[in-house]
Amino acid sequence: MPNQRSVYYLSDRTGITAETLGHSLLTQFDGFEWRKVSIPFIENEEQAREVAEQINQTAERDGKRPLVFSTIITSEIRRHIEQANCVIYDFFETFIGSMEQELGQPSAHAVGRSHSVHNTSSYFNRISAINYSLSNDDGMNLRNFDKADVILVGVSRSGKTPTCLYMALQYGISAANYPLTEEDMETHDLPKALLPYRDKLFGLTLSAEQLTQIRQERRPNSRYASLEQCELELKWQSELYQRYRLPFIDTTNISIEEISTTILKQKKLKRRLYGE
Amino acid sequence: MPNQRSVYYLSDRTGITAETLGHSLLTQFDGFEWRKVSIPFIENEEQAREVAEQINQTAERDGKRPLVFSTIITSEIRRHIEQANCVIYDFFETFIGSMEQELGQPSAHAVGRSHSVHNTSSYFNRISAINYSLSNDDGMNLRNFDKADVILVGVSRSGKTPTCLYMALQYGISAANYPLTEEDMETHDLPKALLPYRDKLFGLTLSAEQLTQIRQERRPNSRYASLEQCELELKWQSELYQRYRLPFIDTTNISIEEISTTILKQKKLKRRLYGE
Repeated sequence: MPNQRSVYYLSDRTGITAETLGHSLLTQFDGFEWRKVSIPFIENEEQAREVAEQINQTAERDGKRPLVFSTIITSEIRRHIEQANCVIYDFFETFIGSMEQELGQPSAHAVGRSHSVHNTSSYFNRISAINYSLSNDDGMNLRNFDKADVILVGVSRSGKTPTCLYMALQYGISAANYPLTEEDMETHDLPKALLPYRDKLFGLTLSAEQLTQIRQERRPNSRYASLEQCELELKWQSELYQRYRLPFIDTTNISIEEISTTILKQKKLKRRLYGE
Repeated sequence: MPNQRSVYYLSDRTGITAETLGHSLLTQFDGFEWRKVSIPFIENEEQAREVAEQINQTAERDGKRPLVFSTIITSEIRRHIEQANCVIYDFFETFIGSMEQELGQPSAHAVGRSHSVHNTSSYFNRISAINYSLSNDDGMNLRNFDKADVILVGVSRSGKTPTCLYMALQYGISAANYPLTEEDMETHDLPKALLPYRDKLFGLTLSAEQLTQIRQERRPNSRYASLEQCELELKWQSELYQRYRLPFIDTTNISIEEISTTILKQKKLKRRLYGE
């Protein structure tokens, strides 16, 4: 029976920052089973009191203090949480004092800035990158490839689409993708449509075992999903990447975040969003 | 001339946690212009020395210490950064000691856990939610609506698609969307396809000024993009939301993150990802 601990993510806005930070700390502790509760938009003292009460009940039930990751900015709201039976990791309070000193001015102490829309041009860059990725998915609209920041290639189900969408949402990057198909295999060459864009290409690959598992979800027991077919396609793909010296990443067991960040770094892509 | 300060986001992995933390703190200080540099995947001492050197050069050029937000876990690598001329906000070092004490065990001090794929079922949930959102965008595949966690409705360009994609990527939520069109307006009623799913609907709206601005980007000087047409559609939409008592959110000037989190909270959706 694993060690269970309750975890709260508290925020006066979306809670995304608290979750990201808390998650990255929790992954450093093995052998626990975390019972996670996210409470965003804690906007007044009444709500804060209810949350404190909920935390107290959890503490009593567990016989252990919940871990609370908080980005609550308003001190009146935070005060109620601080009185609850929990251990607080307070991202705002911890760093803001030292930053005020370094920057020589008080912080705004204003709620809801980190995921607000401050900057209209950032907003439009983001939406336009998402639209670009959607309309240039899976080899659609080849004539738009000159507008791509990067063009991902890879066999079916190698992770091209989720990666393109993530790069658009997180970084405002216009990422197109082009599937390497069986017909391409027959030509033993890079698809003609891609030749003018060699500098923009980035390959994805993965293990045949993972590829067959992913394809089985889509078309169970098909030739398409068979281990033999996956091995064949990946072998051909690997030769293609080598012949054209395409940069590529093996996505087996790595996350969309890691794939995207690696491509960004290796292709030296200029991001149009910076955590806005 | 605004106050310029250089900011570094350093990480031995993707840098996403460092960027999230830094961004949410920096937004609390007005009147600065931040020169941001993200350096992910600092994986050995050689690279760390180069980064330290780069920071020193920046400090000299600026005449001010750069602000460094770091999630570097390996102490050998961190040591080099600590010797550079900068002020470090070290996310990992700050909290991990207190957590070790609370949890009664040492942390793994292992790199690359927060955005890795630990959990295959989480990974498949995420991919399947993304696929669901893509194939149920813009009223496609109405027969799949019974599998939706939520169905967003709203006039063209009200932000349905980016919100659905974000909910899929961030939370593993299967979100469909259905556009309210001029033909729907003529019936003065909720589109028939939506009637069986009233409980799953969530409306988006926004100001006519913002809608016309967004539509102008797509089809400049069209009737579709005119202020008059936008006002007409939004008025009809508002009456529809009221008549059917649909929950809705006004997305004017708020981010995709805020929209998504609000929907999640109001519809009490069960997320299949938790910052994994």
